[in-house]
Amino acid sequence: MREAVEKILSGSHLAGARLISLLEARQSEGVALLKQLYPHTGAAFIIGITGPPGAGKSTLVDCMITELRLRKKRVGVLAIDPSSPYSGGALLGDRVRMRGHELDDGVFIRSMASRGRMGGIGQSTREAVLVLDAMGHDVILIETVGVGQDEIDVIGVSHATVVVSIPGMGDDIQAMKAGLLEIGDVFVVNKADLAGSEELVRLLEGMLHLRADAVSSWRPPVIQTVALRNEGVAELIDACFDFHRQASASGLLSQRIAGNQTAFLRQLVMELAAEKILKPASSRDRLAELNRAVARREIDPYTAAEKLLATFFR
Amino acid sequence: MREAVEKILSGSHLAGARLISLLEARQSEGVALLKQLYPHTGAAFIIGITGPPGAGKSTLVDCMITELRLRKKRVGVLAIDPSSPYSGGALLGDRVRMRGHELDDGVFIRSMASRGRMGGIGQSTREAVLVLDAMGHDVILIETVGVGQDEIDVIGVSHATVVVSIPGMGDDIQAMKAGLLEIGDVFVVNKADLAGSEELVRLLEGMLHLRADAVSSWRPPVIQTVALRNEGVAELIDACFDFHRQASASGLLSQRIAGNQTAFLRQLVMELAAEKILKPASSRDRLAELNRAVARREIDPYTAAEKLLATFFR
Repeated sequence: MREAVEKILSGSHLAGARLISLLEARQSEGVALLKQLYPHTGAAFIIGITGPPGAGKSTLVDCMITELRLRKKRVGVLAIDPSSPYSGGALLGDRVRMRGHELDDGVFIRSMASRGRMGGIGQSTREAVLVLDAMGHDVILIETVGVGQDEIDVIGVSHATVVVSIPGMGDDIQAMKAGLLEIGDVFVVNKADLAGSEELVRLLEGMLHLRADAVSSWRPPVIQTVALRNEGVAELIDACFDFHRQASASGLLSQRIAGNQTAFLRQLVMELAAEKILKPASSRDRLAELNRAVARREIDPYTAAEKLLATFFR
Repeated sequence: MREAVEKILSGSHLAGARLISLLEARQSEGVALLKQLYPHTGAAFIIGITGPPGAGKSTLVDCMITELRLRKKRVGVLAIDPSSPYSGGALLGDRVRMRGHELDDGVFIRSMASRGRMGGIGQSTREAVLVLDAMGHDVILIETVGVGQDEIDVIGVSHATVVVSIPGMGDDIQAMKAGLLEIGDVFVVNKADLAGSEELVRLLEGMLHLRADAVSSWRPPVIQTVALRNEGVAELIDACFDFHRQASASGLLSQRIAGNQTAFLRQLVMELAAEKILKPASSRDRLAELNRAVARREIDPYTAAEKLLATFFR
């Protein structure tokens, strides 16, 4: 264990990847390691990148990695993939996304399945972020594929959120932006060489103007990029660091970190409680029995849940 | 309360909508009503409709409603919207989707936010389904907007899952289909008048051919629709009822229902446990104290969670 801890702290990709796999599989050994690593976390700047499918997020993240490497930053990347609830596998292989960074020891990329566990992607993402942090990465990029709950979860882990959109997407994708609009610290109009780019920038700027930021005086910028030609990426990275600086000074960042940590702690408490309440063989028998009664409509599920819990709490 | 129960059982839209709002707001009055309604549930056929944004799901659902009404079925619809974690509002107004069904007492449509609560959309969707069921709807359609966790959750509520795709979507949308492929009972190629429709049908049929269904001999059909012209919708509804018949006979349906119910019961147990563990003022003080220690890295979050729980469990 001592050895694994040291390997991770020295940035070993192999040891880091192994620990993330242990944590994903809910192996207690993984948690034991993470406990030891925890005092060595807290230095990384965590950036969430989100937006609708087709916005070119993967390519943009590739460019962000390259730009961050030019600035001598060590970069960890988590790509959250929507995945099958059955196979549990991440859909997009890591090899697909590693192009150009395979030989760079300063870049660590990991795909994670967004599986249907209690708490959604939150917990395993949080844990993987801690591992990447302990490994000594200066910046951690979390990329979500897809929209919906995953997106909302990822802001509970990040210090800064980058929202990516592109010109000319359909109506319902525009509608989703209303939700994304509130969570972004930096906005990107990618594929900015397409028609409609200027209009989208103006639309976003107009909507952002209406957004009330209670805590911070930060005005989220809208940055045009053409990821495929590496245009606008340096400006995007500048904007992220600008945000980090200003949010550190205003107290927004420490407030956000405290909020994220509270959510993590509550989640851990409830995961441990679930183990104590649902896992014992006696509970499983009782659950099966109550389930049969619920199925026969002899009891409603709420009363059944109360009955089960009554054996644990006064 | 007696009166509200009777109004809901007689199908009152107003009383049903009010109860769903109470449940979404976690009002104990809502749960009390649902307990009374529970014995009157279990008759509805619950169909989940899922697929990437832009596939035309809303229009397709509109056509499905019309077709089901022609067959004299009472139809309840839940539209799950990705929503802001802050405003909590559903993005697409119910009025938008009500077109053509406003005056039909046999159709009840409700939009629900997919909010960041423990358990994702699962619990409030399950509860709303129970309300629609008690109201006497023969068929309940659950439409998800977006992809990712929401999609995975919705299959935990449905009896049958319809997966909608369209020709000519981008690469990463195709990649997502791999996950959706495993959860579908009926597949729809919508906008089947577009180029590439036949190819997509053949692609889906080829991939479905490889899918191993352990429990059932059901071979998921691929149905071409042009929702805007109401083409193929009768065939889609036929396929859903075919599945229902065959899955009832094979035992697949009762197995699925039992699985869904177990998940719901476990979720309720943990929600009640969270109330007992996290809600008391003493817990909140202890949590705040532990949080400060975690922030100072004096203790890791896992040990902190164990400490908090130790006061509840032996």
